[in-house]
Amino acid sequence: MRLLLLSNSTAPGHGYLDHARAEIADALGGARRLLFVPWAQADHDGYTARVAEAFAPLGVEVTGAHTAGRPASLLDAADAVFVGGGNSFRLLTALHRHGLIDAIRARVAAGALYLGSSAGTNMACPTLRTTNDMPIVQPPSFGALGLVPFQINPHYLDPVPGSTHMGETRAQRIKEFHEENDVPVLGLREGTWLRAGDGRLTLGGVPAGAVLFRRGQEPVEYGPGAELSELLAGEPAFDSPQG
Amino acid sequence: MRLLLLSNSTAPGHGYLDHARAEIADALGGARRLLFVPWAQADHDGYTARVAEAFAPLGVEVTGAHTAGRPASLLDAADAVFVGGGNSFRLLTALHRHGLIDAIRARVAAGALYLGSSAGTNMACPTLRTTNDMPIVQPPSFGALGLVPFQINPHYLDPVPGSTHMGETRAQRIKEFHEENDVPVLGLREGTWLRAGDGRLTLGGVPAGAVLFRRGQEPVEYGPGAELSELLAGEPAFDSPQG
Repeated sequence: MRLLLLSNSTAPGHGYLDHARAEIADALGGARRLLFVPWAQADHDGYTARVAEAFAPLGVEVTGAHTAGRPASLLDAADAVFVGGGNSFRLLTALHRHGLIDAIRARVAAGALYLGSSAGTNMACPTLRTTNDMPIVQPPSFGALGLVPFQINPHYLDPVPGSTHMGETRAQRIKEFHEENDVPVLGLREGTWLRAGDGRLTLGGVPAGAVLFRRGQEPVEYGPGAELSELLAGEPAFDSPQG
Repeated sequence: MRLLLLSNSTAPGHGYLDHARAEIADALGGARRLLFVPWAQADHDGYTARVAEAFAPLGVEVTGAHTAGRPASLLDAADAVFVGGGNSFRLLTALHRHGLIDAIRARVAAGALYLGSSAGTNMACPTLRTTNDMPIVQPPSFGALGLVPFQINPHYLDPVPGSTHMGETRAQRIKEFHEENDVPVLGLREGTWLRAGDGRLTLGGVPAGAVLFRRGQEPVEYGPGAELSELLAGEPAFDSPQG
């Protein structure tokens, strides 16, 4: 499977997707027809227009998945699928409602490139259990696309030194995840991404890199170019199979 | 119903529950037997011991809900219920599993004091849809106790000036909630609480106070002592009745 999973869509001071433009162009290869999945945000037309504008310089034609009564019918004509960021609970609810979980999985297995950013990157995991988003709607299941067998935490944020806020840090939240589940969690700092293809998985983007959390182990840091292919092996162990 | 809903359990530089001790003592009145619900955290015995220590100076005897095969059977003997903070998804999953949603609601309706902090405060709302926590487990439903007809966001955090982090601010998350639901959301800043009794609802705690978000309206600030009883009227409108 070919995947490009971005931690975030926009870097400070840059336009939408600009910080990852070269990587996106390379991952697209010859792909020219992209199906965009806009449901993480409320304004589907506006969001799709923004994405179309970002992909136009790459010679890629963008179709919004919301423009068809049966969105899965648009997958065959697409050689790339981009699932955009926003609220991951709203996004996952829509993927289930439109029957897109199995359909996207099948299309990507058949060769289409999967692009995700933020919530769209969460969707590539077995479940949405490591999202940062507010659960504004209740999806029928937390089960997601499972294009990779581990969990990703996008927008991974280190503890803020000297903060007096008593809410949990991101690392504490991931520790809570590991009290309940035995699945690796990769914290992707902003400006980083994962690229998969030919059975390999590599980290790209800014030097800050990513941090890998495994149950009962100390976190491990990785920098750009690090190979993480070992994460593609293994069966995730969640407390309940439904997600 | 008598409620005391804390944004957080611990203030910087203070011991557990210390910042709200006087208010807790006043709310308890003559209550001397407290049932503690520890499932938001993983170590139930340790968490219960910590709570017992905090309540001992108030002359209150604490029993952990996890110490009975059928936790609801412990409710009748309790004149106060305290639901502690931690992960709200784990907590809500346990409340459903142990049949405590209806049981706690009934006991509080019959006169027991409900104390909540953080995740325990979220549980007093119709659903957990305004929690900040990571969805580490999937509850059978997002529906919670509904002791109040509006939503609370505990640990409410103002946007950090100059932050370059591209994840959503708390206000943006609540805006997303209002794209999907028509229910007021009260952002309780740390160090604040809500007290309900005799049909009245008042804000207490530090001067920073709370901010009320209503769909399609500008947020409104409230300071300590503000009366919010109007929030006790009205029917919440969620996109799906299950929560």
